[in-house]
Amino acid sequence: MIHNFTTDHQVNHRSIRQFKDQPLTTEQLTTIYEAARHTSSSMFLQQFSILRLTDPKKRAAVREISKQPYVGAEGELLIFIADLYRNQQIRHQLGNDGGRLHTTDIFMQAAEDTILALQNALTAAESMGLGGVVLGSIKNDPEKLIQVLDLPKMTFPILGLQVGVPNQEPQLKPRLPLNQITFNDNYPRDFKLSSLKEYDQTVTTYYDLRDANKRIDSFTKQINGDKLNNHQTSRDKLLQALHDQGLALN
Amino acid sequence: MIHNFTTDHQVNHRSIRQFKDQPLTTEQLTTIYEAARHTSSSMFLQQFSILRLTDPKKRAAVREISKQPYVGAEGELLIFIADLYRNQQIRHQLGNDGGRLHTTDIFMQAAEDTILALQNALTAAESMGLGGVVLGSIKNDPEKLIQVLDLPKMTFPILGLQVGVPNQEPQLKPRLPLNQITFNDNYPRDFKLSSLKEYDQTVTTYYDLRDANKRIDSFTKQINGDKLNNHQTSRDKLLQALHDQGLALN
Repeated sequence: MIHNFTTDHQVNHRSIRQFKDQPLTTEQLTTIYEAARHTSSSMFLQQFSILRLTDPKKRAAVREISKQPYVGAEGELLIFIADLYRNQQIRHQLGNDGGRLHTTDIFMQAAEDTILALQNALTAAESMGLGGVVLGSIKNDPEKLIQVLDLPKMTFPILGLQVGVPNQEPQLKPRLPLNQITFNDNYPRDFKLSSLKEYDQTVTTYYDLRDANKRIDSFTKQINGDKLNNHQTSRDKLLQALHDQGLALN
Repeated sequence: MIHNFTTDHQVNHRSIRQFKDQPLTTEQLTTIYEAARHTSSSMFLQQFSILRLTDPKKRAAVREISKQPYVGAEGELLIFIADLYRNQQIRHQLGNDGGRLHTTDIFMQAAEDTILALQNALTAAESMGLGGVVLGSIKNDPEKLIQVLDLPKMTFPILGLQVGVPNQEPQLKPRLPLNQITFNDNYPRDFKLSSLKEYDQTVTTYYDLRDANKRIDSFTKQINGDKLNNHQTSRDKLLQALHDQGLALN
């Protein structure tokens, strides 16, 4: 591969979950915002917003939903919101209806804008020597999250991003090899479990040797286990919560 | 803001749609792949794949769906796929059912993985002096796209990314100001159309002065117009296409 300042940071990405008790400077935060702001936007609709949580009560409430002790502990907690409210307001205030803002198509475009912007925000943070973690766990209870954040209809929190000055140096987590995830022209249907034997061994070694939370585990074992086994979870309120927000209705 | 090699590229992002007839080197392509591969992954499920289209017939078929003449013309055409097939196969071959792979929750996690990886791929490309454009238009007819790409159930094409050696220098497109998209603790419900007056003027000037496709247009005019007005479109087959692929069933 070709090494430069950007790609070297990218292939050395680790999720950082422990931060020093040291706030970001205004300049650092602005840089993260500017990187997000300049992200590609579907049809120039610009349908995302960032809600920064500084209020300890709100941060604690999000932590409770996430069930992860590090969420909202140290560092900045940014909630990336698919925001169709702004465009709805523009249309309403110009005397128009919401139009296609209520469709699954336009919601997905907003979600895409939001997620692309989040990665740009994280990349900017890492380029400044900061660390961060993408928080999918904020959607453990989507209805409660919307209530805690007091979000109006036509908005939806997609992911969180916690960023700050790193206070840990986790090992690089081994990813699926390129030949498992990149294909030319034809998607291969003949996947064979045995093709992951070596990768499973690499993952097992990683869990065995890492400094914290050592355990015996492999990739295929995780995929075959609790994470994806059928179970009841409030995460399954996702579609209902979307509908309640006036989104993805048809 | 803080300027470095990465953030300077980010805030100077333009979508590039015209490329020189000059293929990427293997090293460039590998670097783009490696940046994508090292992206954060929800619950370590690693649910995305990249399908690179080199076959002129397939590229032409995607172009026809996209209705954009530049799609699949020059440059690399990469389709970013939410890939739950691999994990389904792992579970099946270990004697298990698909479990939660069929839920909206797990599909959204896969889509998130896929979109984050795409932004990393584009960032890597831009860091090497290449250009690119995110292609939402590939989903203009999701069912047809799945057919053209011959994708198995449990996969879904989310976005395309066309990358190559730039053959144009478009102006920087002005984005919504930071105070419209970043908020502290409280999401403001009192949006006022008048707050976009200056931005609308900036966008109007941009369309008036740019080299190609000059026109009279503003942001709020676009939001209030055809893009979001109710109309029939095959893009609305999205949810049905997802269900047909065995995804987002509940």
